[in-house]
Amino acid sequence: MTDPWSSALLTDHYELTMLQGSLRSGAAHRRTVFEMFARRLPETRRYGVVAGTDRFLDALERFRFDEATLDYLSRAGIVDDPTLEWLANYRFTGDIWGYAEGECYFPGSPILVVEGTFAEAVLLETVALSIYNHDCAIASAASRMVTAAGGRPLIEMGSRRTHEMAAVAAARVAYICGFAASSNLEAGRRHGVPTTGTSAHAFTLLHDSERHAFTAQLEALGTGTTLLVDTYDVARAVRTGIELAGTDLGGVRIDSGDLGVLATRVREQLNGAGATDTRIVVTGDLDEYSIQALAIAPVDGYGVGTSLVTGSGTPTASLVYKLVARASEEGPDAPLFPVAKRSVGKPSRGGRKWGVRRFDDDGVATAEVVYDHEPDLGPLERPMLRKLVERGEIVGREPLQAARERHARAVRELPVTAQQMSRGEPAIPTVFEQRVRV
Amino acid sequence: MTDPWSSALLTDHYELTMLQGSLRSGAAHRRTVFEMFARRLPETRRYGVVAGTDRFLDALERFRFDEATLDYLSRAGIVDDPTLEWLANYRFTGDIWGYAEGECYFPGSPILVVEGTFAEAVLLETVALSIYNHDCAIASAASRMVTAAGGRPLIEMGSRRTHEMAAVAAARVAYICGFAASSNLEAGRRHGVPTTGTSAHAFTLLHDSERHAFTAQLEALGTGTTLLVDTYDVARAVRTGIELAGTDLGGVRIDSGDLGVLATRVREQLNGAGATDTRIVVTGDLDEYSIQALAIAPVDGYGVGTSLVTGSGTPTASLVYKLVARASEEGPDAPLFPVAKRSVGKPSRGGRKWGVRRFDDDGVATAEVVYDHEPDLGPLERPMLRKLVERGEIVGREPLQAARERHARAVRELPVTAQQMSRGEPAIPTVFEQRVRV
Repeated sequence: MTDPWSSALLTDHYELTMLQGSLRSGAAHRRTVFEMFARRLPETRRYGVVAGTDRFLDALERFRFDEATLDYLSRAGIVDDPTLEWLANYRFTGDIWGYAEGECYFPGSPILVVEGTFAEAVLLETVALSIYNHDCAIASAASRMVTAAGGRPLIEMGSRRTHEMAAVAAARVAYICGFAASSNLEAGRRHGVPTTGTSAHAFTLLHDSERHAFTAQLEALGTGTTLLVDTYDVARAVRTGIELAGTDLGGVRIDSGDLGVLATRVREQLNGAGATDTRIVVTGDLDEYSIQALAIAPVDGYGVGTSLVTGSGTPTASLVYKLVARASEEGPDAPLFPVAKRSVGKPSRGGRKWGVRRFDDDGVATAEVVYDHEPDLGPLERPMLRKLVERGEIVGREPLQAARERHARAVRELPVTAQQMSRGEPAIPTVFEQRVRV
Repeated sequence: MTDPWSSALLTDHYELTMLQGSLRSGAAHRRTVFEMFARRLPETRRYGVVAGTDRFLDALERFRFDEATLDYLSRAGIVDDPTLEWLANYRFTGDIWGYAEGECYFPGSPILVVEGTFAEAVLLETVALSIYNHDCAIASAASRMVTAAGGRPLIEMGSRRTHEMAAVAAARVAYICGFAASSNLEAGRRHGVPTTGTSAHAFTLLHDSERHAFTAQLEALGTGTTLLVDTYDVARAVRTGIELAGTDLGGVRIDSGDLGVLATRVREQLNGAGATDTRIVVTGDLDEYSIQALAIAPVDGYGVGTSLVTGSGTPTASLVYKLVARASEEGPDAPLFPVAKRSVGKPSRGGRKWGVRRFDDDGVATAEVVYDHEPDLGPLERPMLRKLVERGEIVGREPLQAARERHARAVRELPVTAQQMSRGEPAIPTVFEQRVRV
């Protein structure tokens, strides 16, 4: 189910005033290239993860200035009548390339390349950045958690800690990055993310005793369910659970206390009772570091909330969307003219770019190569840009599963340093290759 | 314009399985009280700010299990048929009280009190927490920025750094907390937040020269506009701006470099040219600390992006939603029975609570008093809970302006320590008053 309303006002005011100014000067119709990229990665990330691509294509499809939208812009006096007229016919007619969803990126990777007139491309700045900055930030955190969990399943359960719609996007992104499931039902409906969950402390407290509560849950959900065992006393709750469900009890969840110690004790207790297949799930303020620290504990799965949906210390990916080339006075058929701001401390490189990943003979990535021209690829180079929009038509949609599979592959291709939890440099360097001019 | 779709799946899976379990045990129909509160404040906050109230009421109104929703739940096998039938008729019929939007809160303040059957109240957990956790986190940061700016206007411009819908909510919240305007157009349309903006570096780079770009902007937006002056050389851009617009030039914006030094130089340059009324707006990775550090610089306004929408280091308010009381075996007319989890390191107090703010003779707040019974208020005490929902009817809506005015008042009432930027304790202590039992 898609929001039926227009996404056109998920836009900063200045994009419309720039439109008005450029319509006035005539420059609105110049061909331009805008690129989205990160100037750097946070110190806690060895790679970035591209996410939000499909959501951006959704937003692009809904990016129409319908009557209600135009009416607001007119009443609020945001732009003049010629601009409103132009907006009424707005439809992106250009081309967009992007790194595929689930891919890894590095500083300078041109993860989105938008080519169109200035007027049509400048309007997409905010909506594109909002979607990618959120989704990539969550994805980069999620991917590390999956690495930290070392094959044990992770459940995303952070909806309550973030904006209600960001929650849906975060659940989707976590799934792309390898989480097994989410608690978020809207993510299940909209995106097909598997959902899971059994009960909270409230359910135990609601009943006259823990035994009553467990009985009710087992009757309603079967013995395969997971009982929450830390409302009162963990050992007693585990004993009660086994008494009621027998050794077929699916699992127990521990949500507080020293999770490693408790998991070890509970495992012993379960094994002692013969419930060797009963799984132990731990939750409660976990992040990639505490997940990794629990590697030696007898834990069968992790639930992750706050740290996932807040990007584990990095809630935004700091991606920017910059004009890098435009038509010049020489006319529409001349090559586009590279442009870049000369700003202190904010390096930008003018000109359209092509991202390529370079590998060694063993298939391990060795560099992110950013060409300032369309390159002739060597046998150990893979082009990173794929066509998302062709002359205004969306051509780059794909099922969520494709992004999930791609992400697992993309991480496997990186050198093993990519999996370090410590602070440090990107897993591979970015190399800028300039055309040799003779 | 409201999203027409149901908000009912902005919900964690386990709320529905708890519903199924409690329908089975019969406990679903027990009267309950759930409360939302923060166990503590972040060290960087002297007070929390209540925000999201009106958005929560919107979500409550749309919290209906319509056919599409039920169809998903059925297909995905999330709950059984009796539960689906119950959900089809779902409508919250209980009572809700809450701290008014814009108010300040402290550890333990019961900022939302939901009274209804377990079945109807438990389902609201995630949607309520998502909205309040996001909005309160942003509000608490925004309020500090307004304090730091000391009367100079602030513009919210962080949409690009957060989820596209979180951006709309953040703009609304910033306005409640005293920001003058936002760049976000959807916040203008949905919530009536004033919007503003003129141009980005792309506009300058699009044109053949900065002079062409400024000319276009001045023609389109008038001499009262704000020119962005740091694309190439700031001093030259300011000179060009004055040449083109005269001393009536509305403002200039500096987005990079040492903002304090540049603002001082630009002020001198503007004054030297007679443009003493031309305003200087600074933007670029500002937070409450850098805003305060610019207090002595000749700055007329600040634009704040990333730090606002990410809650300036605290992207979530860590609010929890807990069952605190329920009907007992003694039957539906007996007093509700206080309940609380006995968990390590997570203090919860059972029983319904009443929040009250206590003042001294000068009208300065001295304590947040949390009663475990409906108190007889003294002359220097103000009740904090207002009715939001009465027997299922929403009665607590109010215009955005009311929340904005309330917030300004609420901060003024606090002791001056509330305005310190340093880390420390809440501005007033929370006192738990228990009924004297004789």
